Amino acid sequence: MVNNSYYSQDLHGPYELHDVGNLELEEGGTIRNCNLAYATFGTLNAAKDNAILVPTWYSGTNKIIEQVLIGKGRGLDPDKYFIIVVNQIGNGLSSSPPNTPAPGGMANFPHVRIGDDVRAQHKLLTEKIGLSSLALVVGGSMGAQQTYEWAVRYSDFVKRAAPIAGTAKNTEHDFVFTETLSEAITSDPGFNGGKYGSSADVAAGLKRHAKLWTVMGWSTDFFREGRHKALGFDSMQAFVDTFMTGYFAPMDPNDLLAMAWKWQRGDVSRNTGDDLASALGRIKAKTYVMPISHDMFFPPSDCEVEQRLIPGSQFRPMKSICGHVGLFGVDPELLAQVDANLNELLAAPGT
Amino acid sequence: MVNNSYYSQDLHGPYELHDVGNLELEEGGTIRNCNLAYATFGTLNAAKDNAILVPTWYSGTNKIIEQVLIGKGRGLDPDKYFIIVVNQIGNGLSSSPPNTPAPGGMANFPHVRIGDDVRAQHKLLTEKIGLSSLALVVGGSMGAQQTYEWAVRYSDFVKRAAPIAGTAKNTEHDFVFTETLSEAITSDPGFNGGKYGSSADVAAGLKRHAKLWTVMGWSTDFFREGRHKALGFDSMQAFVDTFMTGYFAPMDPNDLLAMAWKWQRGDVSRNTGDDLASALGRIKAKTYVMPISHDMFFPPSDCEVEQRLIPGSQFRPMKSICGHVGLFGVDPELLAQVDANLNELLAAPGT
Repeated sequence: MVNNSYYSQDLHGPYELHDVGNLELEEGGTIRNCNLAYATFGTLNAAKDNAILVPTWYSGTNKIIEQVLIGKGRGLDPDKYFIIVVNQIGNGLSSSPPNTPAPGGMANFPHVRIGDDVRAQHKLLTEKIGLSSLALVVGGSMGAQQTYEWAVRYSDFVKRAAPIAGTAKNTEHDFVFTETLSEAITSDPGFNGGKYGSSADVAAGLKRHAKLWTVMGWSTDFFREGRHKALGFDSMQAFVDTFMTGYFAPMDPNDLLAMAWKWQRGDVSRNTGDDLASALGRIKAKTYVMPISHDMFFPPSDCEVEQRLIPGSQFRPMKSICGHVGLFGVDPELLAQVDANLNELLAAPGT
Repeated sequence: MVNNSYYSQDLHGPYELHDVGNLELEEGGTIRNCNLAYATFGTLNAAKDNAILVPTWYSGTNKIIEQVLIGKGRGLDPDKYFIIVVNQIGNGLSSSPPNTPAPGGMANFPHVRIGDDVRAQHKLLTEKIGLSSLALVVGGSMGAQQTYEWAVRYSDFVKRAAPIAGTAKNTEHDFVFTETLSEAITSDPGFNGGKYGSSADVAAGLKRHAKLWTVMGWSTDFFREGRHKALGFDSMQAFVDTFMTGYFAPMDPNDLLAMAWKWQRGDVSRNTGDDLASALGRIKAKTYVMPISHDMFFPPSDCEVEQRLIPGSQFRPMKSICGHVGLFGVDPELLAQVDANLNELLAAPGT
């Protein structure tokens, strides 16, 4: 196991751990005593019908979800709802390469799929928390992948779904983009086949990875309008070096790679013999598909094609020149659009 | 010097070489006996007023320009015009890292700027070919950068200008993207600080570079609509491995880096103390600004901001889901739009 103080209660807590037991993986292999790290906000009501699940995105934890999406008066209001944020497997808090004992940890950590996460989360919600339905599943990016998987796989369990800035079946384009992220890391000699001593050994690769996020994560309009400077950086160089590189630098490379592998292969049609229309046709949740206008990972046009396959769903594109990384919460106008959509969706009858 | 059969008359000829003498560079240093490789099509008329200059884009040579843009009945018709395609410095045919003798070649090749190219081209056109004006300068991508530089620097010489899919001042966003291209190459241990034996030593880096071109060069719509498969590749993997990687693999890494460095820093406002409006205000050429709708390097919105600063210019966006790499010529509908614009521009009175 590798000790990395980034993944700690100090920085990301409070969160709890729940052992869902041995998790048999879709790709083969098992995570023994698979732990899910989760944080809850608000109180479950007597009818147990006010629970909301929020799975995490690539590199994110329950903490950024809390900071960006949850709050009194917000769409995800802990005064009204019981909100459960579950960290995805491989994100450094739940079972992940560096916190898994040898011989299954680090470079030997097995390939995990979105479906594995969702089955593990289902165990947590049913066995530990005692739920039999969710008022809403909402998530951004890889959180949207998990949202779609939930809505397809447990179609009676999920009353409403709000996939934000993500797809049900990852595109070929996004697959190759994500591969460039992974290769930015693995091409660093310091990565050493996953057997590095600390993230600092892979600093050059992590910086290249951060530059790719800079290029694809925001938008050309964001930079033309000087929004990076409005965030307090006096140059593009400072924005890349301080903000983007600084954000990813402390993270564990094997964690990022585990999540990237999963991200590349998100695909609900695995439930229906590669028939995407059939998979999305299973969804019973009232669904709002919520892409971000300037998102270069999951552009609205890719999301709309899927939305049309979901019975009774609505296409709710949101506008932000922050692009995909608008998810980080730097654009208040985007957050207002998220809240407005979630308020409307939560007010609508579920299924 | 490194022998690379890719840069040969067999593959890219016929072209001629002209020695413009010692070229003093804006960044300091000199290219001794700087050679420009160029190819001509058609005949210069007696009035010498039918000459068209086409500078090359990143990685391109006179050959792809000929294949994509020149032809009987096309906008660039050799039956009507005398067309001069000049290879940019660093592209492998003109003076470049591998064809420059020690000690100035390979990793020691000096930094060249767009302005250096344009001054060298001006020497070729005036001293060797005997021109005192150009009916049109037209180029795509880095060819657009050179087109803008020509129109600003030699404003009386250039009667018409058609910058396609490029900007007059490179954006901060595009600067970082281009840096990821360069770093894909330089991070390969086989690159060895520029002292590799052959391009094959840098195959892994060149492949990563090709993947970045795949992600940013085309568009998400291109792949969603399966246009890569329509080009004859049965999978994304085959498209990346065969087409994109195959295209760049034989090229010289130091050549690509020399061009990328130049690309990052294209900026006509260097002529006017960083005042872009003042620089573009100098343009006398009748100018059509011709971005490509799905271009992620130089999106129409970035190009339109510049177009508004050019007196009497027109904004002529073209539609193609091929994005920036539409320049490669795979979309006949894009080429038809290029031709229509050039025909109209050439029919209009020059300045």
